[in-house]
Amino acid sequence: MADKPSVLRETDDEARKLARIILRSARSAAIAVIEPNSGGFPFVSRVLLGIDTDGTPVILVSALSAHTQALSADQRCSLLTGEIGKGDPLAHARLTVQCEAEKVDRDSTSHALIRERFIRRHPKAQLYVDFPDFAFFRLTPLKASMNGGFGKAYVLEGEDLMIRSPAIDDLAAMESGAIDHMNSDHSDAASKYAELYCKAKGTGWKICGLDASGVDLAFGDQLKRLEYEAPLQSKGELRTALVKLYR
Amino acid sequence: MADKPSVLRETDDEARKLARIILRSARSAAIAVIEPNSGGFPFVSRVLLGIDTDGTPVILVSALSAHTQALSADQRCSLLTGEIGKGDPLAHARLTVQCEAEKVDRDSTSHALIRERFIRRHPKAQLYVDFPDFAFFRLTPLKASMNGGFGKAYVLEGEDLMIRSPAIDDLAAMESGAIDHMNSDHSDAASKYAELYCKAKGTGWKICGLDASGVDLAFGDQLKRLEYEAPLQSKGELRTALVKLYR
Repeated sequence: MADKPSVLRETDDEARKLARIILRSARSAAIAVIEPNSGGFPFVSRVLLGIDTDGTPVILVSALSAHTQALSADQRCSLLTGEIGKGDPLAHARLTVQCEAEKVDRDSTSHALIRERFIRRHPKAQLYVDFPDFAFFRLTPLKASMNGGFGKAYVLEGEDLMIRSPAIDDLAAMESGAIDHMNSDHSDAASKYAELYCKAKGTGWKICGLDASGVDLAFGDQLKRLEYEAPLQSKGELRTALVKLYR
Repeated sequence: MADKPSVLRETDDEARKLARIILRSARSAAIAVIEPNSGGFPFVSRVLLGIDTDGTPVILVSALSAHTQALSADQRCSLLTGEIGKGDPLAHARLTVQCEAEKVDRDSTSHALIRERFIRRHPKAQLYVDFPDFAFFRLTPLKASMNGGFGKAYVLEGEDLMIRSPAIDDLAAMESGAIDHMNSDHSDAASKYAELYCKAKGTGWKICGLDASGVDLAFGDQLKRLEYEAPLQSKGELRTALVKLYR
């Protein structure tokens, strides 16, 4: 058997964008880890998923869970995202990301920001996020493979899933205020974005994330991701980008 | 940290039954394997799931896929099943089963039966099941862990997920005919079973599997599992069981 199956397609910008959208619109993921004291047996479970401002996937996990104990012993893990949707489960695009997990120090400034973004994405996590046995892990993508449906396989680099921009920190500092402003003073914008760019219906959409690479939209159980054509390069570009999308 | 987290509950028959239902009603699963030539890195992807007549999970996979190449090199794998459903993804029960995979010989009698059951469960698989690069693997459960929602964790043995009965082969031999008979001559039975025992709605349900331990019910994208109180011990008990359920 060839190392590169014949079904593998050339990874282009469209494939990279689809992969980012699959990852960044996922509420939960299947995570594979190595079971401790098993001689290397794989173990898969389900976790809630968030995304840090630089695109790094983030999970919030209990120290009592098997996957957390596993990640503490071996940081290598694999994330599966992509909704199953209607019809054949294998007809829908899904993404496997090979990652290295690192626990987020509770006293770090990045912890506060990750916590805030995560709760906006998963409001019910507020009930347990501050429990002493819960912790965030950042999962740095090393490489990925996407299956866009039968016969459409792509290989990606970890870098393809990252957000790179000099504006990341400035945007993070203003994110919460900008979201409040948009959801209260331009309350129809999120639903319009969802309809125009994410094939989503309904008028109850809210913005739950703003970063250099795009917008997270939430409505009940649904989460959608709008990706800009290119990352914002300064915080001043945010307003222009949001106005332009509201055509 | 204690080896047994305090959230672990005693595994009783109710938990075992719930675990069987989660596994046997799954259309697809996340499967974790060890990535070949990676030094033991876990890798997770999505597969269609079937169940053999003895309860063993079955997958149909292409030799071109990463998980198949992985299983050919290392038979250890982990299966995650359990629908995400509405609301918090972690509020829904899910099951992790640690398994050893074994390829099913295409010329074996068990292959013909597995193929027939799999296609009844996944009719669209008929399009590719006979492609030369596709193969079935049986995944023998070694042990399992179930998370029934927050604070409800259970450990199970592989045996808890198996079907044990002297009637397995006799029932398998008559399965196809019995299903045809039920779906044509008692066409309302499947919808009645789905409503009475699986909290399911609609009148379009069909039986797609009959084994010593219960009934598989399908309607469009939905798959439900009805488990008998105890496995049938002879093929003669099938009719009685189905009549009794149709109260």
